Amino acid sequence: VSATPNQRRAPRIHLQSSEHDVRIEIVTIGNEVLSGRTLDTNFAFLARALEAASVPVGWHTTVGDGLDRIAEGLSRALERADAVVMTGGLGPTPDDMTRKAVATVLGRPLQLDEHVLAHVRERARSRRTGKLLPAIESQALVPRGAQMWPNPLGTAPGLLIVEKGKPVILLPGVPQEMEALATEHVVPYLRERTGLHVACFTLRTAGAYESLLHEKIASVPNGWPGASLAYLPSYFGVDLRVTVSGEDAAQVEAVAERAYEELRACVAPVIYAEGEHRIEEVVGEALAARGWRIAVAESCTGGLLAKRITDVGGSSAWFDAGFVTYANAVKVAELGVREADLAAHGAVSAPVAEQMAEGARRAAGAHVGVAITGVAGPAGGSEEKPVGTVFIAVVTPDVAAVRAFRFHGTRASIRERSAQMALDLARRAIQKLPLEAKLE
Amino acid sequence: VSATPNQRRAPRIHLQSSEHDVRIEIVTIGNEVLSGRTLDTNFAFLARALEAASVPVGWHTTVGDGLDRIAEGLSRALERADAVVMTGGLGPTPDDMTRKAVATVLGRPLQLDEHVLAHVRERARSRRTGKLLPAIESQALVPRGAQMWPNPLGTAPGLLIVEKGKPVILLPGVPQEMEALATEHVVPYLRERTGLHVACFTLRTAGAYESLLHEKIASVPNGWPGASLAYLPSYFGVDLRVTVSGEDAAQVEAVAERAYEELRACVAPVIYAEGEHRIEEVVGEALAARGWRIAVAESCTGGLLAKRITDVGGSSAWFDAGFVTYANAVKVAELGVREADLAAHGAVSAPVAEQMAEGARRAAGAHVGVAITGVAGPAGGSEEKPVGTVFIAVVTPDVAAVRAFRFHGTRASIRERSAQMALDLARRAIQKLPLEAKLE
Repeated sequence: VSATPNQRRAPRIHLQSSEHDVRIEIVTIGNEVLSGRTLDTNFAFLARALEAASVPVGWHTTVGDGLDRIAEGLSRALERADAVVMTGGLGPTPDDMTRKAVATVLGRPLQLDEHVLAHVRERARSRRTGKLLPAIESQALVPRGAQMWPNPLGTAPGLLIVEKGKPVILLPGVPQEMEALATEHVVPYLRERTGLHVACFTLRTAGAYESLLHEKIASVPNGWPGASLAYLPSYFGVDLRVTVSGEDAAQVEAVAERAYEELRACVAPVIYAEGEHRIEEVVGEALAARGWRIAVAESCTGGLLAKRITDVGGSSAWFDAGFVTYANAVKVAELGVREADLAAHGAVSAPVAEQMAEGARRAAGAHVGVAITGVAGPAGGSEEKPVGTVFIAVVTPDVAAVRAFRFHGTRASIRERSAQMALDLARRAIQKLPLEAKLE
Repeated sequence: VSATPNQRRAPRIHLQSSEHDVRIEIVTIGNEVLSGRTLDTNFAFLARALEAASVPVGWHTTVGDGLDRIAEGLSRALERADAVVMTGGLGPTPDDMTRKAVATVLGRPLQLDEHVLAHVRERARSRRTGKLLPAIESQALVPRGAQMWPNPLGTAPGLLIVEKGKPVILLPGVPQEMEALATEHVVPYLRERTGLHVACFTLRTAGAYESLLHEKIASVPNGWPGASLAYLPSYFGVDLRVTVSGEDAAQVEAVAERAYEELRACVAPVIYAEGEHRIEEVVGEALAARGWRIAVAESCTGGLLAKRITDVGGSSAWFDAGFVTYANAVKVAELGVREADLAAHGAVSAPVAEQMAEGARRAAGAHVGVAITGVAGPAGGSEEKPVGTVFIAVVTPDVAAVRAFRFHGTRASIRERSAQMALDLARRAIQKLPLEAKLE
């Protein structure tokens, strides 16, 4: 991470423009997605990449693997959309039906394409097996007139067919392959066919309910012509996302600038980041800015806090060590938690959280220590300390504090919220801000 | 986790049947989903819950927050589906348009419902603020004739409108609230209106490419009438999912039984679990069965391995401690890694992986130690040890081993694959299986 907090703040409003007007439908193909067993991260990636390039996605549809379902999905999409992007069903196995369905709907019979065959063979050879499996060659049968975008990571290439002026784009379903093809070819290609001036920005908040934010913001957005404000709640807090669009680039930009200042003024004390900046990145940058290093100790989050800090590339510059101390004996041996306090207050208590944070900091020789101890459930709750009771402690060269929370939800959501609030507390302590979020 | 491995294996085939034939369309509402910023976990949850109840989901569509878009989405869904479930847009803020759009399409004007109002008021009071915000009361305006399902976790209730015999169901977009309403009301309600005999099972594999699995399985599925086999690749390996459907319950069950035996025979050495059973659960059960406890040490995965082991409720019964040792000094101080080996072989090496596993085991007083050290990128690679180079070590009372991997992909995918292969290696060592997956 090279940017300082101030550099990150500068390009806060994302502004783009272009010439024509194209509205996209994305069609996901696959029983595994339709059954809910596989999350459709391909769609999310494509939609974000297209939005960032100001290409508006109008619809998203998911259909099963069957020939008829894929054909119906494409036919309906061609009725309303100006371009169609389909993902999935291009692989070598018999349940991969997309090329056949597209050939049927567009009346373009499948033909063996020598360029695609050469690409498929080359890609298959570079794999570890060294073997060329006959099924893989079937991927070179493509609808007549299809143009190929080579797949740098797999055997199924991206295909482009322009049918009566409408692009129909086929991409493999393997995420890395789809992402590489989308970034290199699909987004730039569709970018050239779009047109609207769009500006957008996101303010990310933690520690305040959606309804409280709404009360604070009230009717302020009524003064922003062409703008929409969305409240996006998640385990991480509530993101406030403003999108301004219109035909006049200067006005779009002016409205976005005003909206940005006014919205910030409403909710400043609970904003932890802007755009897609994550709180673990903010914490990393804050540590780097001070030249500090961090160590963490976790009980109920079981490694999630360390995992999130080290999700950030280059985090070895500010992260020293994490201690996942489930057993009480390990809390004593590794972190120096006092057995008397474990006995008197229990492992889920303010004194133990404080001693864990201090112990992690001392054991790793770090500047900052953060600790989480709590009851994530489903078992382990008591009347005094029900499931969701969590203590979070932070210690820096300037300050030491512990806060108590009572989270609701599942084991997974309690763990996620605990890690998020620990990161927010660390951020506040490192940046020398008030340790408690207060809107007023 | 109370089930032993053998108990888990028994209900391997999921078999269900019912009376009528209904095909569902799920419509997700929200710019934040259409923009790709929010993953549509609501859809995935609903689809899985409905599939488990043998209610076939035929289509999934995502539309933006606008009144026209929601109305168009509902109109199109009513054309082809027998029931429509819509999620999102029921909240108290002005971008929540679903009730209004549904009222327009169905010609059922919004009316204040006293029962819903009472529910909304009661739910709002139980929140921490104690305050009743006027916007929240707007949630009691519902399309004429709507029936309410109370929301146990929030203010927006689920709504059911039966329009010309077709159920239209509206659910809030907040995941926990949607999930509670779906489980308690929506699935049982739709379950009563469905009909097909369906049997399905999943075999989960790790360590073999999709194309190699396909070569081993070849034409075996041709002998399974009414069955489909899907290959579902992910960071965790390849899931093989078989679905058998038909009008004759006995035949469906017989085909599923045969398919199960034949598919297992093809790929037995790489199967780590069945159904939705996760490898961290398998590892936990294997440890519990032996009465063993585990400790882990991680470098490049930064806590992910400990996090996955402790994702399992009750894991304190077999998990003692995790050490996230990023800094070399911490590897030496906490795990007893020899400085000479760090100097001679580097932190990413087989000897250091072995010493980390042994050190974690010793420090925690556990039976099993597992360690990961590698280069997750994006920086830190060299010619000799490029990004993706990972060493994984395991030590148990019976065996000690270290394996070298070269993963491809992003920082996130390298970390996920590393944790998965560490769990698979641990599983094999604890269950006293061959440590290397070999298909032949």
